[in-house]
Amino acid sequence: MKLLVKNVLPINGDGKTLCDVAVTNGIITAIGRAPEGFAPDDTVEGGGRLCMPALVNAHTHMYMSVLRGAADDLPFMQWLFEGVMPREDKMDVGQAYWGSLLSCVEMIRRGCCTFNDMHLFPGAAARAAQDIGMRAVVNRAVTGPDGGERRINEMLGEINEFKGCRNVYFMIAPHAIYTCSQEYLTKLADIAEELALPVHIHLSESVAEMNDCLRDHGCTPVEYLVKMGFFKNKTLAAHCVQLTETDILLLAEHGVSVAANPKSNLKLGNGIAPVYQLDKAGVNVCIGTDSAASNNSLNMFSEMNYTALLHKGTNGDPTVIPARKAFEMATVNGAKALCIDKLGRLEPGWKADLVLLDTDVPQMMPLRDLYAAVVYSCDGSETDTVIIDGRPVYLHKEFTTIDTEELYYNIRKIAEVI
Amino acid sequence: MKLLVKNVLPINGDGKTLCDVAVTNGIITAIGRAPEGFAPDDTVEGGGRLCMPALVNAHTHMYMSVLRGAADDLPFMQWLFEGVMPREDKMDVGQAYWGSLLSCVEMIRRGCCTFNDMHLFPGAAARAAQDIGMRAVVNRAVTGPDGGERRINEMLGEINEFKGCRNVYFMIAPHAIYTCSQEYLTKLADIAEELALPVHIHLSESVAEMNDCLRDHGCTPVEYLVKMGFFKNKTLAAHCVQLTETDILLLAEHGVSVAANPKSNLKLGNGIAPVYQLDKAGVNVCIGTDSAASNNSLNMFSEMNYTALLHKGTNGDPTVIPARKAFEMATVNGAKALCIDKLGRLEPGWKADLVLLDTDVPQMMPLRDLYAAVVYSCDGSETDTVIIDGRPVYLHKEFTTIDTEELYYNIRKIAEVI
Repeated sequence: MKLLVKNVLPINGDGKTLCDVAVTNGIITAIGRAPEGFAPDDTVEGGGRLCMPALVNAHTHMYMSVLRGAADDLPFMQWLFEGVMPREDKMDVGQAYWGSLLSCVEMIRRGCCTFNDMHLFPGAAARAAQDIGMRAVVNRAVTGPDGGERRINEMLGEINEFKGCRNVYFMIAPHAIYTCSQEYLTKLADIAEELALPVHIHLSESVAEMNDCLRDHGCTPVEYLVKMGFFKNKTLAAHCVQLTETDILLLAEHGVSVAANPKSNLKLGNGIAPVYQLDKAGVNVCIGTDSAASNNSLNMFSEMNYTALLHKGTNGDPTVIPARKAFEMATVNGAKALCIDKLGRLEPGWKADLVLLDTDVPQMMPLRDLYAAVVYSCDGSETDTVIIDGRPVYLHKEFTTIDTEELYYNIRKIAEVI
Repeated sequence: MKLLVKNVLPINGDGKTLCDVAVTNGIITAIGRAPEGFAPDDTVEGGGRLCMPALVNAHTHMYMSVLRGAADDLPFMQWLFEGVMPREDKMDVGQAYWGSLLSCVEMIRRGCCTFNDMHLFPGAAARAAQDIGMRAVVNRAVTGPDGGERRINEMLGEINEFKGCRNVYFMIAPHAIYTCSQEYLTKLADIAEELALPVHIHLSESVAEMNDCLRDHGCTPVEYLVKMGFFKNKTLAAHCVQLTETDILLLAEHGVSVAANPKSNLKLGNGIAPVYQLDKAGVNVCIGTDSAASNNSLNMFSEMNYTALLHKGTNGDPTVIPARKAFEMATVNGAKALCIDKLGRLEPGWKADLVLLDTDVPQMMPLRDLYAAVVYSCDGSETDTVIIDGRPVYLHKEFTTIDTEELYYNIRKIAEVI
């Protein structure tokens, strides 16, 4: 399958010269001019639009979009126990599918082609991603010891069901140190090692988690995991808001990636992750939206914007996290954290997850530095066309693979009962 | 001139019942059903969209949109002296007009109908606003003593030229305490009193401003102005990032409004204004974008989102600045700060600056609390129709009053030389 994307302004180009992008079997083969004799099966006219590698959402919970707006401006425990959990209890895997598909639609319309979903409903997000044509990393959130065996079986069942599916990847996901016993955490680390899969975990999200860990284990959450040898696998830790200087060094030393979730961490009152300090220490920092129940949007342009601005303000230095750095966190760093090879750069040999952005809109005028335009000026609505694995999934603001009217109809029906 | 807006979901309604909004001569006369015998000159079909009062941008510099992206990720002094000022020196009032019109277009497309413009080019923003049909508060930024007389004359000239123009309002704007002498500040406060106009000033924006004031005057910037009796006029202070607890009480005591500019303050490394503490102390807090040279967008939805999220995170409390409060800061509080009567609420007797938002978009599904949807989920692109002073200026995503192609052509030409 050969695709030619014509007349685009590459984000890593000179900002003036229009290029063509040639894609063969989902891989970028040339930028500038198509190779001699390149006979595309399909052509997308770029119309001078900006072309960038797609954004990567490194931490989310896809099914939770059906809970959007169900519990805002509440204390955390009330949010969790009154707003979120009673509704989760009522949900089934069919509803989780539609919620996941809604998340796919929202993310693709805002230039994001890969998500990392920590979920409760095996198969829901993977199926939604397959139906729409999106790149999915799925992981069943597991907690234990109580019910831990059942959850591990569900997790293994999902891995078996979707193993070999194109663009579906897996992680092993103990939910958090406060919902898993030490034995359970160790067991899951062993399973990950055996299956050669990376690990995903919520870590140091709140002051309560930090304080409880200090009380119960006499050390920080990061130190607790280090001590039990948890980081023997490639690990992506979500949140990491509450960190000591030692924690930062430990994360760097053990090659742990961190998914910052700036909007969710602010909205739930948890604070601001030390992204600048983590990056400076050599930690691979990427960005997630968290769920629509604690955000309430899945707009990676907005998360990139928060990432670039927040740390300038909190560090009192406008040179901190420049536009290009925030962009890398939202693209190639995310792919690296998810162990997806050659994803997140606009270069020959890299995966063809491409986004075309309108520039004939006031917020993009005048168009000077392209990274600055994308990070500081875009709201995400500039997304005109999205190509995933070399396939135009969203073309000139219309989905080619699914019926959004059917989706919206189902979401409205679900919202009546959840 | 009578306008009927049909079939909309009022933001302050029950979230279910569709209403009509009747407008006579720019004033809302009824919501729900049009009055008996109401014969509209024009009708807008709302199509079930959400209807809200328009957003108010309480602090910006309209002409600076032509400088967007000219100086990012730089230390403040380099930003100012290498990025911004040399370009300002090259600009003329014609270029400032096109820059101002670009700002109008960007703001209206994102649901904002009123701006407060502190400028260097008299007439530019007022003319742009008149041409497109937007509500404008204009004020010539004046500094002195050097050149201070000339600037005051320009300011008075602008006031005389546009006095009596519908939807053009004025403020007196000494630029800041560090660019105006005490005598000059006092003189301007006297002029404001004489003309019965409110005052607009940059205040306590940076650590440097605070430290210099402590060194030179032995008190904080707020105390400095209090001591000289500056607040005898109704005053809107922009920024107010660096405040002591006493400053907050003094601002409340003197009825000073504060325009927070969350994104600009972060991007320039100045920090985060104590919005929650100001609001709690009874200060009228509103929201501005600042200029596109330090933001780099004029999207009031995004500013509202930052306002609602930031202070939850920095105060460690998810109940702080709930959605409804952030919405009021971005609407009625802004109007109050700008001394525009009966603006910013969707109620009979109030000015008909109305925004219709699409709800058939994934980020608005499911639609539960309408304020939460607008503040937490919208990116601003949901704006379908904008009515200013009872006149549809932007109808189903097209401007009715100006030619955007001509505008974009001129912006591209200006960017080549500025």
